[in-house]
Amino acid sequence: MRVEELTTPALLVDADALDHNLRTMSAALPGPRLRPHVKAHKCTGLAGMQARLGHHGFTCATVREVVGMAAAGLGADLLLANEVVDPRALDRLGRLDARVTVAVDSAATIEAAVRGRIREVVVDVNVGIPRCGCAVEDAGRLAELAQTGGLLVRGVMGYEGHAVGLHDRALRAETTEVAMEVLARAHREVGGDVISGGGTGTYDLNVLATEIQAGSYALLDTAYARLDLPFRQALSVLATVISVSASGYAVADCGLKALGMDHGNPSLEGGQDVYLVADEHITFGIDTPTAVGDRVRVLPAHVDPTVAYHERMHVVRDGEVVETWPVDLRGW
Amino acid sequence: MRVEELTTPALLVDADALDHNLRTMSAALPGPRLRPHVKAHKCTGLAGMQARLGHHGFTCATVREVVGMAAAGLGADLLLANEVVDPRALDRLGRLDARVTVAVDSAATIEAAVRGRIREVVVDVNVGIPRCGCAVEDAGRLAELAQTGGLLVRGVMGYEGHAVGLHDRALRAETTEVAMEVLARAHREVGGDVISGGGTGTYDLNVLATEIQAGSYALLDTAYARLDLPFRQALSVLATVISVSASGYAVADCGLKALGMDHGNPSLEGGQDVYLVADEHITFGIDTPTAVGDRVRVLPAHVDPTVAYHERMHVVRDGEVVETWPVDLRGW
Repeated sequence: MRVEELTTPALLVDADALDHNLRTMSAALPGPRLRPHVKAHKCTGLAGMQARLGHHGFTCATVREVVGMAAAGLGADLLLANEVVDPRALDRLGRLDARVTVAVDSAATIEAAVRGRIREVVVDVNVGIPRCGCAVEDAGRLAELAQTGGLLVRGVMGYEGHAVGLHDRALRAETTEVAMEVLARAHREVGGDVISGGGTGTYDLNVLATEIQAGSYALLDTAYARLDLPFRQALSVLATVISVSASGYAVADCGLKALGMDHGNPSLEGGQDVYLVADEHITFGIDTPTAVGDRVRVLPAHVDPTVAYHERMHVVRDGEVVETWPVDLRGW
Repeated sequence: MRVEELTTPALLVDADALDHNLRTMSAALPGPRLRPHVKAHKCTGLAGMQARLGHHGFTCATVREVVGMAAAGLGADLLLANEVVDPRALDRLGRLDARVTVAVDSAATIEAAVRGRIREVVVDVNVGIPRCGCAVEDAGRLAELAQTGGLLVRGVMGYEGHAVGLHDRALRAETTEVAMEVLARAHREVGGDVISGGGTGTYDLNVLATEIQAGSYALLDTAYARLDLPFRQALSVLATVISVSASGYAVADCGLKALGMDHGNPSLEGGQDVYLVADEHITFGIDTPTAVGDRVRVLPAHVDPTVAYHERMHVVRDGEVVETWPVDLRGW
């Protein structure tokens, strides 16, 4: 099928850019040095490509992602880098034919893991953002508590989410270093082989983590594209121009339900400014002749919540759809 | 099932608030005076309730919504209040066993409708927001063009999207009046029985439109809740507290993929400030004892892009899930 034949809005992945991104990251972080985060693409088709490049451990953010990865035969070593206390959710994890490691950061999450027949955990440590993760001084005590409960403690996890998006590379490196000093301190108390952390923005700056949890690098977005990273923007939303105004703007058929908006408006591949995003529309300025029926490629500002709106992504090369993958890990 | 048994995040609809909203609107705009917009809830279960209250004409924003409404037996009079030029999409519409009316705003969209065997159209007029809609002076010419092509022109449509959210009621009324003067001018050229427009914020201020396209009133969001409207907030996202910090904040398991973010951060039912929203987390300040496992209700800032992330919505009354509806109109 040609790209022109797709009904819009449609999520497109540029095959060459994806290939470049995956290979560049695999060269920098071969095999188990990278634990790709599936939350960014939510797609076992894409995760399969990452596995074929030698990465057999994956990071997940939701139970559904873990379950879906296991069902796709990608369950060799799944880290749920998130806390879960829902007994039903834990029960789904406990019954999987896969190696599942869960993050814990409190007595309550450890008790839940024990009750849910989880076998392996990492201690999640707060390294600087107000999200999950225990205080560093509690890490050792929690590891002991987990062991007492019969859990194998594989190590520690800490995400420097406040560093990954910093534009200045030196500041990003420094912020990462400070965060990883905290994680190293926790690791000295907890022990274990695993020190899990990092993201696309710090994949080559985080020298403590034994494995980097990068996810966005595969598809990228306009926020990460502004950093000094060697990855290319592979993701876009294909839209059709449905209205052209003599006042110098055009309207295309993708909007708030096709684009994650927390990082602001998307951009147009041609460089035109998007100045209005409504439920099913974007409005953008036009400076070249534009006709109803023309197609535009819209570059999202944030990859993760964009992908989560779509049922499928189309991998394209030279105007041809070479593969269509369901976004099969979305939902909960 | 009790609400406590739901896996989180889960989309909840308060049955009493929904009932109040639907009845309040039906009393103000009985029968065909209201053409409920399904884009806000994307749910044929909820649309069925609206139909049972006497509203048999519906507004849709996407082809998928039209197709889904027809399949659910709610196709008595469906207005696709949007332009479509994709031949495949038009073909799906043309083959439906339903009454389908499509918006047109240019020669190109009229030609597409004719080719797609669409029978009825309205002329979409720009009444003040830079989105679809022809210039008022083109409306008559386009109506003639449509008639020449064999289309029945039912009337005009114009959405005062720049008015519906204005906090000051007098300003909202005045802005609506100015917009509807434009639509009235177009209607004098076009003719027909239908003058379609309006939204939740202007449902009682727009006195020109023969039918009001309100959608958000059924579920509401924190943006509309700040206006002087008689509707209650029926929609929330149920989340589980998964981490509590001694620094005075807690983290719950709903985030950017469960909440439309273009109107900003959500609010918590208890009134606590949400100060961080990540892919699968919200972080909020706590001033009362909060434990891991507690449930919170998160009130989205914008209903439409929130609902579009969820597979289903649970209607709840007195802590009991009385109905679960698939969000079956999402996607494209």
